[in-house]
Formats: sequence, structure tokens, C-alpha cells
Amino acid sequence: MLNPADAPFISQLRGLLPEAAFRPLTDAYLQEPRGRYHGQGGGLVAPRSTAEVAQVIRACAAARVGVVPYGGGTGLVGGQVMEQGPAPLILSLERMRDITVHPSENVAVVQAGAILQDVQECAAKADRLFPLSLASGGSARIGGVLATNAGGVNVLRYGNARDLCLGVEAVLPDGQIFNGLTRLRKDNTGYDLRHLLIGAEGTLGVITSAALRLFARPRDVAVAMLAVPGPAQALDLLALAGKVAGESVSAFELISRMGFQFLAENLPDIRQPFPHPPGWCVLVELGMGAGAASAMEQLFELGMEAGLVTDGVIAQSNAQAQALWSVREHIPEANRRIGSISSHDISLPLSAIPDFIPRGIDALAKIDQYRVNCFGHLGDGNLHYNVFPMPGKARADHEDQREAIKTCVHDLVHQMGGSVSAEHGIGRLKVGDLQKYGDAGKLSAIHAIKSAIDPLGIMNPGVIVPG
Amino acid sequence: MLNPADAPFISQLRGLLPEAAFRPLTDAYLQEPRGRYHGQGGGLVAPRSTAEVAQVIRACAAARVGVVPYGGGTGLVGGQVMEQGPAPLILSLERMRDITVHPSENVAVVQAGAILQDVQECAAKADRLFPLSLASGGSARIGGVLATNAGGVNVLRYGNARDLCLGVEAVLPDGQIFNGLTRLRKDNTGYDLRHLLIGAEGTLGVITSAALRLFARPRDVAVAMLAVPGPAQALDLLALAGKVAGESVSAFELISRMGFQFLAENLPDIRQPFPHPPGWCVLVELGMGAGAASAMEQLFELGMEAGLVTDGVIAQSNAQAQALWSVREHIPEANRRIGSISSHDISLPLSAIPDFIPRGIDALAKIDQYRVNCFGHLGDGNLHYNVFPMPGKARADHEDQREAIKTCVHDLVHQMGGSVSAEHGIGRLKVGDLQKYGDAGKLSAIHAIKSAIDPLGIMNPGVIVPG
Repeated sequence: MLNPADAPFISQLRGLLPEAAFRPLTDAYLQEPRGRYHGQGGGLVAPRSTAEVAQVIRACAAARVGVVPYGGGTGLVGGQVMEQGPAPLILSLERMRDITVHPSENVAVVQAGAILQDVQECAAKADRLFPLSLASGGSARIGGVLATNAGGVNVLRYGNARDLCLGVEAVLPDGQIFNGLTRLRKDNTGYDLRHLLIGAEGTLGVITSAALRLFARPRDVAVAMLAVPGPAQALDLLALAGKVAGESVSAFELISRMGFQFLAENLPDIRQPFPHPPGWCVLVELGMGAGAASAMEQLFELGMEAGLVTDGVIAQSNAQAQALWSVREHIPEANRRIGSISSHDISLPLSAIPDFIPRGIDALAKIDQYRVNCFGHLGDGNLHYNVFPMPGKARADHEDQREAIKTCVHDLVHQMGGSVSAEHGIGRLKVGDLQKYGDAGKLSAIHAIKSAIDPLGIMNPGVIVPG
Repeated sequence: MLNPADAPFISQLRGLLPEAAFRPLTDAYLQEPRGRYHGQGGGLVAPRSTAEVAQVIRACAAARVGVVPYGGGTGLVGGQVMEQGPAPLILSLERMRDITVHPSENVAVVQAGAILQDVQECAAKADRLFPLSLASGGSARIGGVLATNAGGVNVLRYGNARDLCLGVEAVLPDGQIFNGLTRLRKDNTGYDLRHLLIGAEGTLGVITSAALRLFARPRDVAVAMLAVPGPAQALDLLALAGKVAGESVSAFELISRMGFQFLAENLPDIRQPFPHPPGWCVLVELGMGAGAASAMEQLFELGMEAGLVTDGVIAQSNAQAQALWSVREHIPEANRRIGSISSHDISLPLSAIPDFIPRGIDALAKIDQYRVNCFGHLGDGNLHYNVFPMPGKARADHEDQREAIKTCVHDLVHQMGGSVSAEHGIGRLKVGDLQKYGDAGKLSAIHAIKSAIDPLGIMNPGVIVPG
């Protein structure tokens, strides 16, 4: 059983850390973007160094006080806020923001509190690309990005956060420092703790620093919005894009007519590429050394010939490219303005997607009448499958159906071999889903690992593993 | 303490598995390629299915009998042969060889006993590429390739074995099956057991099946051998290649004059590209949709202008490309004919390599006179740094210096932030190195995980974790 981070404990910490490490625990640290959870905490510390983090964790272990590691607070599954149980210590990484770029190695060594956008900008200054790209990039911090194995729009080409990380330094739950901050591209010396800590959402230790992979910046980028007959043809077009441009396909995002309609209704200033929105379309980005425009034209022509593309707009300037991206990027905002009843961050085997989309809609129709806005990272098999009220209704009218909607979508995803959390993680929101859908062998291994590495259960209690 | 796989235990297994699962334990299973270890075993089983593997492991757990999982037997660190301790059961995956290609998903689902080359060929038949490429590809099996997180010549572009794997199915040490054979590109649902099992060298369970990533086949490939002033310039040229061709750089292999000399002495039929071997050169391969030849010419010209390239040969035909590759691929054979005293599979931060190479040679010279053939995957920071006797001497003359040579090289690698096992793993050969050079936090986590997942210690005893 854990103890609260009470006043005597906080004053004990004051003996260990400099004054600057203590910041007020304002309400901002206890909220999360969707407003579903409200956290609590006995105090907040913001160490400046890994050694200070280790001191904090040792003190928490000795006193059996829970720790909630805090990055940018942008997570969508409640991993950063603890509603119940003895008040935890909030451990914010916000003062650990150093970024060192090694251009000759295509590596940036970054402290966990560095903001994603700052990392991208430091890389760009060195004429390199850090490709991880999230809507929350202006606030998300690298520690959280790694702890949740964040995804985003460039995963198709560059991989998830874990694929962009060569090494991590972390403080383990007993206060030991794991010095794994290597800048090596190959290192086969025992179990890969890096990959265990990445995606563990702070339950096995606190990532304090990371060595991140950088890339050459594609000098020539082409962007197009291509209308397709349906998701099946979109997938065939993805395969064709692979033939034409290899791994230079940087993004392949699906948008449906519902997405365009939501935009027209709620964000009419966003210029839409088609006078009559097609049933389905994809936003395609190719980035290469040279020849992107001609590769895109080739893809367009071959796609038309094969019946995979029915219409399309190829951006002729940077401004046009940005306008096309703006359509995709504003869909979440349009969604927010309508207010989804239930949102689902799911992934499926690519070939199951064309079946899944209508089956999900049919299954939901048995509960009530809804609008589904299905969009997202088609190239990764990752859909945001969000359920909205019909015009004239509001999410509040369906509050009692939320659980049934979620179960309906998640059951179908599970049945078709998919995942009920593609990129957002488990946090506290989906602990029940993991227990319900998770493989028995995996669950028992997760429990064994958690007990072995964090036997006192102080690290981010209630996340991934039930409290 | 473990029990031997004795006659009563084997006859107990005969009650569980069909007759076909029992094969003679011939000497071939007890040898390893370098002839340094000779194994032992109480018997061999070759199950046909994951369910049969689970039955075997359950029986071993109940009887506390050690299990040595056996793939292609090509590992170089003794992970597949157990010299000491109670005779283990050898569990060969050789009868589990099914391969199913899903071209529309760019995925192959492969049983652990499938031979790497067969996977490559099945992918090629579907007009796809499985990029993992090893010298031992005709014998290595996918289970072993994943268990050791194998590397090879295409890591620069496509990553190690772990980067090519979307999901694994495995039997855990208690006989439970981990059903993780997803074909998902994104799945953030709890700790990533896949990445824990990959690289664990069979110590945390037996991988029985895997979902592997396939790629579009680069339609246009250019190969060149470019002479460079030295390793520092080779690294600058690598950065330049990234600018010119982005991620289309498929291979970037370093060769030294010593490599050419060893070839000339031992394999004179291998046609060499330069009449007078340069001090250093790199084999560069670019693979893209189109324009590879012009990108290579551009790299050559820009490299000459910048003083990074002094001479070069760009292949003008497939035959010439193969001839250039043949030079690189025959270096290990030339090495074998001479007989290295000690071989080192090391990696370093890229920027440390130009310093490391001469510092290693200087440090070795304090022990005795040697020839060093340093070659390998420069783009990955992975060198094979192999130490040979001077002309007229033999490896046997230096047998008593082997340990000192290894320590000399490994100490320097460690001091410069590198890894003493870049791609071959720990096995039984490097257990002492891991204990010596491994981070304390990492070692204690490794022990905790091993005890939690395999509390009886039956899985590949003595590998990674000391017996």
C-alpha cells in the first residue's frame, strides 16, 4: 500500500533538492486535454538533472510514495493524471530541456523535458529532420513522447517514437540510473531495456534523456489530394505509391466526405480542394532528393489508368501544399467543435480496413443513429474512428450510449485482429480494455515485469497495470 | 538446479508428441561455425506447431530440464550450444517453415524455422523485398535471426531484425503461448514483449512465428566503389549521400587496403576494382524508384569536388555491380583462410570511428605485431575489427595473446562509448563482457526480468545471464 506525498514527505524532499526544483502544483498539472479526468497530487518537483531525479525516486521508494511523471500533459488516455489513491508526487521534467545536435552522426541527444517542436527546430537549424510530427508538438515533451511511443503523420516513413530512439537514460523505480544513452545504431548486448521503457508510460521508470535519430531533409517534396473510389482502392494506391516512390512516401492520410462536411460546417475558412467533396480521398506526400513532382504525376496517371484515382489536386507551390495539409490538420478541430460521443484510436491489418469501416458503421447503427468520421494514418493501418451525433443532436444526448459505442467498435476491432490503442497508449483510460482484449500470455508477462522492476508499485500507479 | 534431459524424460516426451518430432541428435547440432564450443544434449525434438512447442516447454518446466532453442546453428557467440551443466533438450524449429506472404499489406507471416533465403525468395515472388541480408542467409532461420536481432548489410536503410518485425508469437518459459502475431504497424497496448523477446537469444521463451515487414523492391539500383582519403572522409561522404539520395542509401560498407591485400593473397580470382588498392574505400549502393545512376554520378562528382572521393568505379551493369559486391562479400572468406587471432564485432558512435581505428592499432602494437583488417557496416557504426598474425606467423603463435587482444579492443571500444557486440549478441561467448562492461542499472534489470519470466532458469541456460 502506498503512502501519500504529504507535507512531511515534501519537506524531506526540500532537504534533498535545491529550492528551484519546487514549483507550485497548479491546476494545469491536474487536467488533461479531454477533460475526462481530474488529478490530485501532494506536491510537484521539477528536477534539473538526472541525479536529482534519482534522488527523488529513491526518496519515494523509501517512503513508498507514488510518482506521476509529467511531460507536456498532452496525453489522451489519462496517463499523466491520477484521480484516486494516496496523493502522488508529480515529477515534472520541464526544467530538463537540453538539446545537443550531432549533425555528423544524424543524432540529437535530448533531455526528457525538451519540447518536441524545439527538437524539430534544432534539427532543422543543423539541416536535419526530426520527423516525429504531432498536433501537440508545441507542448509535448520528449520524455512523454517516448513513454507513450507517440505516432503522428510521418510514421509510415520514419516509424513511431521508438523507431527514432537509439538510446535512453532513465531512473529505475529503485532510484538506480540506467545509463543507456548510447548513440549506437547497433548494440546487441542483452535485453533491450530501451524498448521496454519506451511505451511503458512511466510505469517502469522515468526516462530522463534520449538519443534520437535525425534524417537528411528531403529536398524535394510533393503533396497531392487524390480522390479514390473507396478505402480498398486507397490501399491499392498506397501499394502503387510504394512502387513509384519506394520509402519516399512520407504520408498517406485518409479523409472521408464526412470529414469535408464537418470542415465546411464548422471551419468554413479552410479552403477545400474539391468543389464537391468525394466519398473518400487520400492526402499523399512524397519527399525525396529530387523528382518528387514527376513521381507524384506518375502516381496520379498510373492511379487514374488503374481506376484507383478518380480526381485529384497536385499542389503546385508550397502554399498549395500547406493548404492541402491544412485540410487534414483541421479535421480534429472540426471534430472538437461538433463534439464526438466516443473517439477510437484503432489499428487494423491493412487488408482488413476496407471491410472494417462499413462493418463498424453497420454495427453502430444497431445502437442508434450516428455520424462516423473515419480518418487518419491509412498507411499505418491506424484510423481515428470517431462517432458523432446526428445533426440537431448533441453528445450529451448520447452520454448513456458511450460505453456501448466503445464496446461495439473495440469488439469489432479485436475480432478483426486489430488494436484498441494504436498510438495513444493505455494510460488509465484503457486499463480495462487491455485486461479484456489483451492476450493472456502477454498480460501475465506484463504483470511479472512490473512486479520485478517496480515491486513497490510506486511508478505511475494505476497506469497499464491495474492498481 | 536443473535436471538433465535423460532417457526417462525423453520417453515422457514421446508420449506427448508424434513420432516425427523426434530426430537424431547428430553432431551437427552440437557444433558452431567457429569451432570454439562443442555442445551436449540429452535429445532433440523438432515440433511441427506452436502447440507442440508449448507441450515441450511445459514438460521441461515441470521436470526442470534446460532447453536450447535451435535455429540454423549459424550464431557466432555460442548461443546455440551448451557445453556445461545438465544435458539440455535441443528444441529445433526446423520443421516449422511455413511462409505466407500478404502482398497488399507488405507483410510475410513466417514460422520460426523458415530459412532466411526462403523468406527473401517468397517475398521476391510477390514482387516485394525482405531486406535482411546475411552471409549465412542460406542456413539461418527466422527464429534465430529474431532471437539474436541479426543485422547484415542493409541495416543502414531498413534496420536490424527487430525493426523488420511487426509481431511475434512465442512460447513463454511456463509453456504459455504469447499470441502476439499481429500484422499491425501501430499497437500501443502495454509493454512491448516483442522487443523484449527479440534479442533475448531464447532466454525468455521460444519465438515460434513472426509477422515480418516487406518493402517495395527498389526498381533502380546503382552500386559504386569509391576510394576515400580515410574513414573521416568516408563519414562525410555518407552525410553527402544522405543529402543526395535520402534514405535510398541501401549500403555503405568500409573496406581497407588490408582487405584488398587479403583478397589478393587468398582469393586471387576475385576481380579487384582498383589496380593499386587505395588505403580506404567504401562500397555504396543506392536503390530507388528511378534515377539511381544519376544520383550516384552526382554523389561521385560532389564527393570529388569536396575532396571526399579520390577515385572510383561506378558499376555500369548488373554484372559489374555483382562484381563489386563480390569483393565485399569475400572479405570474411579471405579472413578465414588467414585465420584471425581475435575477431571483434563492435559498434561506435559514428563520429568516434575515425579516432578509434588508429587508436586500436596503436594499442594492439603494445602487445605484439599484428595486421588489423577493419571493415564493415560503416553506415551503422558497426566495424568488424579483426586481428591477424603478421605474414609468416599463424594464429596458433598468438594463442596466449588472444585474451589480451580482446581486452585491449573491447576496453577501448567501451571507453569511447561503443558496444562490444554490435550484431552477434552475447550468447555464451560474451557473458563475461556483458558483466564487465554492462551498465549496473541495466544488469540488475536484466536479472530481474530473467527471474520474473523464467524463474526456473530453463530457457537457454548460461546465455546472457550467467548460469
